[in-house]
Amino acid sequence: MSDIAMIRAAAGRLAGHARRTPMLSSPFLDEIAGRRVLVKPECLQHTGSFKYRGGRAALSALDPQTRARGVIAYSSGNHAQGVALAAREMGAPAVIVMPSDAPVLKIANTRAYGAEVVLYDRPGGESREEVGTRLMAERGLTLIKPYDAPEVIAGQGTCGLEIAAQARARGVTRADVLVCCGGGGLSSGIALALEAEAPGLRARPCEPEGFDDTARALATGQVSPNPRESGSICDAILTPQPGALTFPIMRRLCGPGLVVSEAEVLRAMALAWLRLKVVAEPGGAVALAAALFRPDEIAGEAVICTISGGNADAGIFRTALERYGSAVS
Amino acid sequence: MSDIAMIRAAAGRLAGHARRTPMLSSPFLDEIAGRRVLVKPECLQHTGSFKYRGGRAALSALDPQTRARGVIAYSSGNHAQGVALAAREMGAPAVIVMPSDAPVLKIANTRAYGAEVVLYDRPGGESREEVGTRLMAERGLTLIKPYDAPEVIAGQGTCGLEIAAQARARGVTRADVLVCCGGGGLSSGIALALEAEAPGLRARPCEPEGFDDTARALATGQVSPNPRESGSICDAILTPQPGALTFPIMRRLCGPGLVVSEAEVLRAMALAWLRLKVVAEPGGAVALAAALFRPDEIAGEAVICTISGGNADAGIFRTALERYGSAVS
Repeated sequence: MSDIAMIRAAAGRLAGHARRTPMLSSPFLDEIAGRRVLVKPECLQHTGSFKYRGGRAALSALDPQTRARGVIAYSSGNHAQGVALAAREMGAPAVIVMPSDAPVLKIANTRAYGAEVVLYDRPGGESREEVGTRLMAERGLTLIKPYDAPEVIAGQGTCGLEIAAQARARGVTRADVLVCCGGGGLSSGIALALEAEAPGLRARPCEPEGFDDTARALATGQVSPNPRESGSICDAILTPQPGALTFPIMRRLCGPGLVVSEAEVLRAMALAWLRLKVVAEPGGAVALAAALFRPDEIAGEAVICTISGGNADAGIFRTALERYGSAVS
Repeated sequence: MSDIAMIRAAAGRLAGHARRTPMLSSPFLDEIAGRRVLVKPECLQHTGSFKYRGGRAALSALDPQTRARGVIAYSSGNHAQGVALAAREMGAPAVIVMPSDAPVLKIANTRAYGAEVVLYDRPGGESREEVGTRLMAERGLTLIKPYDAPEVIAGQGTCGLEIAAQARARGVTRADVLVCCGGGGLSSGIALALEAEAPGLRARPCEPEGFDDTARALATGQVSPNPRESGSICDAILTPQPGALTFPIMRRLCGPGLVVSEAEVLRAMALAWLRLKVVAEPGGAVALAAALFRPDEIAGEAVICTISGGNADAGIFRTALERYGSAVS
């Protein structure tokens, strides 16, 4: 089980590799939110999302012989790129199993980071699990799960250590910390870090409408899957339900979940572009959207939020700018 | 005259106010450039450009009584916002003289930072100089020039101190440092800082085609104005000729200027979006464009470049994404 000692150990292994992302702010965002807004832009992390932290933490925790045999991940998105880059840096082979209809750019990026991409869902072919299980057996690969793994949670928790220090340096000791939430790796990791290093800060998972599995589970204590598995622009954070390891941590430490609409996500993307000059992908903008547009659900004079990733599709980004990019406020 | 002592003093006054912007990189950009590319994203600075550094340095160098009477600047762009925010932070009134046809968003931003905006060029009204001279006389305001002022150059030079330290931390001791160049405040300030702190790094001004006044002056030793005063998407860095204070510094310290096309600027904007997750405005992307698309004019295994600002118009940005945002490389 992940704990603060594992997070601190992961931070030691990530030092000099992961970027210490800055903490940004804008008086224009403060005005919209009605309180001070501090933004942790993990879109500026290597590979464009926080996932590099967990990937590197997990790879660096393997014993060298195991690592040298290689790792495998199932992902069409940010986790794939994070694991691929970490593996290349550490000289480990990486196999990423991706759906054959994944965007060309994401396949190309993952390959460019040095991973072997294996596609599934080809007509008449094996399933994702069949492909992965066969490769693991054949090559002795180690599976790097996207969130439900102690070392991955610990790696994401290093972002929480930075938030605690950066908030303290700005005089913020009591605030909600809004976290973009899919399976809960980043939320649970940050929550553990804050518990130890900044007990006045409280993590709160943020999700898009229709995919609020974590908010519902936190409210009811019962985990139940979302009615749909796809159909949101927030593709980076769509998971059917919170993880078996992440949910108990979130239930113990996190405040209530926040849920935002797709229109609010697009507006938050445009405001991150206009006021912070950083690129948020839809799933990476849900926490900023909650900070800006759900003021009545947040307590305190300041709010902290993550931008978890910036690997946006150009078409979606243009839509966000077209609708909201020229807004004066 | 600006020197390294003034830059270090400015850095002391800016500590805790200006952001120490990070140094970013991407293996994808390295591949395009054919060498290691380190990017200094001043778009992440307060007000979205490096101009806050010079504004705050100049304001904080005034004696308190002079400052309390207020400051004035002529600008429709980044200098206006930098001076306005610095003045508000220091409790000084700021008057910004802007053309009446300036973009609504820039006028609104400047006002939102607390400045009084005075418009000129209204039919039958006073000229810019008449408006400014009258206000200075009436109110005892101090003019903050955009680049040809020692304390402004010193403030921009603080960016060079950071580049020197960040390059050293990455093992880069010999490289060209490409700087987006209008009047030469940032280029000359960075050049002075590098001379003292990183003598193996050499500043090189970068400009758009048709507005290469600094490149021509460096090549010939003769200052001559550009044939046109407007008509480029790189509005932030259009000046008729290098400054009387900045040019002698650049002539002594800078390498040859680099000149890029508007198409290259748009492609660099899209690549900053895709690979670094930061927002570059056209004028802020000229140095990245030169780093990526002028490899034969650059020496060495690494190149450093500034992104000087991110206050892009939404329409131009959408155009950049439409043309180049989906490119795999």
